[in-house]
Amino acid sequence: MQFQLTTDYLEKVVQLIANKDRIALRQLLKDIHFADIAELLEELNSEEATYLIKSLESEITSEALMELDEDDREKILNRLSPIEIAKEIEEMDTDDAADVVSELDDHIQKKVIEKIEDEEHASDIVELLNYEEDTAGALMAKELVKVKETWTVASCVREMRRQAENVTRVHSIYVTDKDDKLKGRLSLKDLLTASTKTHISDVYISKVDYVSVDTKDEEVAKIMQKYDLEAIPVVDQKGVLVGRITIDDIVDFIKEEAEKDYQLAAGISQDVEADDNIYELTKARLPWLVLGLFGGLGSVYILQGFDEALSSYPILFFFTPLIAAMAGNVGVQSSAIIVQGLANDVVKGSMFHRLIKEVGLALINGSILGLLVILFGAFVGQDFIVSITIALSMLSVIIIASLIGTFVPIILDRKGIDPAIATGPFITTSNDIFGIFLFFYIAKLILGF
Amino acid sequence: MQFQLTTDYLEKVVQLIANKDRIALRQLLKDIHFADIAELLEELNSEEATYLIKSLESEITSEALMELDEDDREKILNRLSPIEIAKEIEEMDTDDAADVVSELDDHIQKKVIEKIEDEEHASDIVELLNYEEDTAGALMAKELVKVKETWTVASCVREMRRQAENVTRVHSIYVTDKDDKLKGRLSLKDLLTASTKTHISDVYISKVDYVSVDTKDEEVAKIMQKYDLEAIPVVDQKGVLVGRITIDDIVDFIKEEAEKDYQLAAGISQDVEADDNIYELTKARLPWLVLGLFGGLGSVYILQGFDEALSSYPILFFFTPLIAAMAGNVGVQSSAIIVQGLANDVVKGSMFHRLIKEVGLALINGSILGLLVILFGAFVGQDFIVSITIALSMLSVIIIASLIGTFVPIILDRKGIDPAIATGPFITTSNDIFGIFLFFYIAKLILGF
Repeated sequence: MQFQLTTDYLEKVVQLIANKDRIALRQLLKDIHFADIAELLEELNSEEATYLIKSLESEITSEALMELDEDDREKILNRLSPIEIAKEIEEMDTDDAADVVSELDDHIQKKVIEKIEDEEHASDIVELLNYEEDTAGALMAKELVKVKETWTVASCVREMRRQAENVTRVHSIYVTDKDDKLKGRLSLKDLLTASTKTHISDVYISKVDYVSVDTKDEEVAKIMQKYDLEAIPVVDQKGVLVGRITIDDIVDFIKEEAEKDYQLAAGISQDVEADDNIYELTKARLPWLVLGLFGGLGSVYILQGFDEALSSYPILFFFTPLIAAMAGNVGVQSSAIIVQGLANDVVKGSMFHRLIKEVGLALINGSILGLLVILFGAFVGQDFIVSITIALSMLSVIIIASLIGTFVPIILDRKGIDPAIATGPFITTSNDIFGIFLFFYIAKLILGF
Repeated sequence: MQFQLTTDYLEKVVQLIANKDRIALRQLLKDIHFADIAELLEELNSEEATYLIKSLESEITSEALMELDEDDREKILNRLSPIEIAKEIEEMDTDDAADVVSELDDHIQKKVIEKIEDEEHASDIVELLNYEEDTAGALMAKELVKVKETWTVASCVREMRRQAENVTRVHSIYVTDKDDKLKGRLSLKDLLTASTKTHISDVYISKVDYVSVDTKDEEVAKIMQKYDLEAIPVVDQKGVLVGRITIDDIVDFIKEEAEKDYQLAAGISQDVEADDNIYELTKARLPWLVLGLFGGLGSVYILQGFDEALSSYPILFFFTPLIAAMAGNVGVQSSAIIVQGLANDVVKGSMFHRLIKEVGLALINGSILGLLVILFGAFVGQDFIVSITIALSMLSVIIIASLIGTFVPIILDRKGIDPAIATGPFITTSNDIFGIFLFFYIAKLILGF
């Protein structure tokens, strides 16, 4: 059932574009879903993609444009005139439209908005542009179906038919008072089963979840997930219903957040993909590697400080990478669990309780690993005191690394900084340095070199 | 607007449970959302939680039970009789019900199913239990609204009212032929605007996305996301409509997958949370640390093989942690990008093309980092030949590490193994060992110790 973009198909499209055969192109792409058009656009160069956009109906292309990466979309929009952009925007829901307009350069923004024929649509977009980023206001769409509590079911159905024209999915019908203040909601099911003369005030559900325009987007995502909502109304400071947020926006939001956290944990600093070009990939990766390099140079400096051990206990230098790796691994584990816990609100209880738990965990893991090191030492005939030294200092390193891994994200979170930046190279690098220092310091105490 | 579970509130609930004051408990929790009841259940011990479940209406508690972690739910269900479990299951949608039943022990499963009064519900659950895990069949619910193509709009509305009783959210109305084969769908909007005498066959949309019972769940998630679907019908091998999957199941699926990948990248092997007990956390973390330890012992062995360099070039041993860190960081970056790309289907093109790109990227990053090492060497007055040696071997290590990071996940993916396991400690450990060996091997070639 699914569309498969084959090389043959792609070649055919490219050929038709090269021939400027608009009619055949339209014919070929007639029944194709906008998401598949988007896939096609990604494979074309921006000149070809622009030709394709101009050839098809805005109804389809506006949706396809929304499926593209911001970069790809920008390249195409740069080749369109303000009036052509306005045509695309006219077909979009207000939330998508506002997103696209906000991506345009300031001077083009104005021109595009002027060219939008539907004045209500234009003023809705302008309104949405004014909300702060990362808030419910910036996430919501103006499209929704609302009815007044004083109406009857019959007038309600009439009015809904009119409003539903502009709304892709109805989800819920919101009920407001005469001042447009949100009073409750009405399910389509209830509407289907109520008699036509009933007043809305008698059938609507007054318990309704809602958010305010300045609620943070992650808060919105949490509420919608927790209460299994498919849409949530948004009210302004006076309680007036101004928009709604649907689950598909939240799905995108959840995916983006998860990918961002994952990339940060891996030491990749911006939203890049495997298919981005080398320059973008370098920009996203190099800074973290430079951080790692400076950390590594830091450990060179520390190791030089313990060079008197070179003659008496060279074995310590053979164990350094192991210690650094353990410090890094433990730190990443601890921080990843905390970052996920913070995201899901499961990090409860006092700092002290968490401290005890982490130390307990580190003691168990560290002791088992230490025992393995001692067994290994016995197996290869290593000095027992050296094995004990390595095991003991590794245990200390593991305890400290898990504490750093646990508390750095918690502290960042309390200061309002995204704790996910503390997971990847940041934690491994600082734990490397700290771990190596601690390892040699304890070894020096015990072995006395 | 949101419920806040305060300590006071919790204490009150615990007190009422201790007093076995069922009436006051019901009164207190009367207007509370099931998701909040679930939050409350998480804070109670299993005896208290069971009392609470028994005290409230199954309509609420069945939903609250579904919000709990599998472990927490199991603890409560173990304290309920088969008939009490059956009461809860009676109130659940079939997909949730089947999930809960499948978590029960085999001999209890049978007893519970026998106690379900609604026979259709029971046989639906049994049907769902038979589908293979990770398929659309196991993910779908039997609840849906369907109409025959031969009906009129009027009879359709009548029938829908009846069916809608059992369906929480209508989403789409599916149209079938006389053999229950899926023909298309009908939007509620169309139904509202069509005249009552129209035949369904004249108004329904024959283009409908669907999946088969044996479609893999990740494929379902991809299709629903790509085409922005809020529900998708599921058909059997003969094309008969047997169920539907809704977006909320997919939201859960996406979250779980993202969390699993993230945990694997951080070296945590099962689904654990910050609030799990020490035993569970150890079980999830220790195996990866042991892997790291063996890797570290491997590098001890390698370093011992190059011990002749101790007297002439001790500096190389000071640089070992840096090299290991760079190999690990580069490997994790490469593998994370590939793992995400594979998940999002953006890893296209030939292996050869990807090889060229990765080597190019590694050359750029490695050269810049190498230059920094040489500058550092000049700054601290290090032998130029030593600096060059370190820079060159670091460059080689970076190239090899990025190739391992790129191709190990791709190969795993082609062999049908989850590529995410190749991101965390696995890639850092193997790159550590390999990087250290390469570093000393090249250093030996150049410096000739």
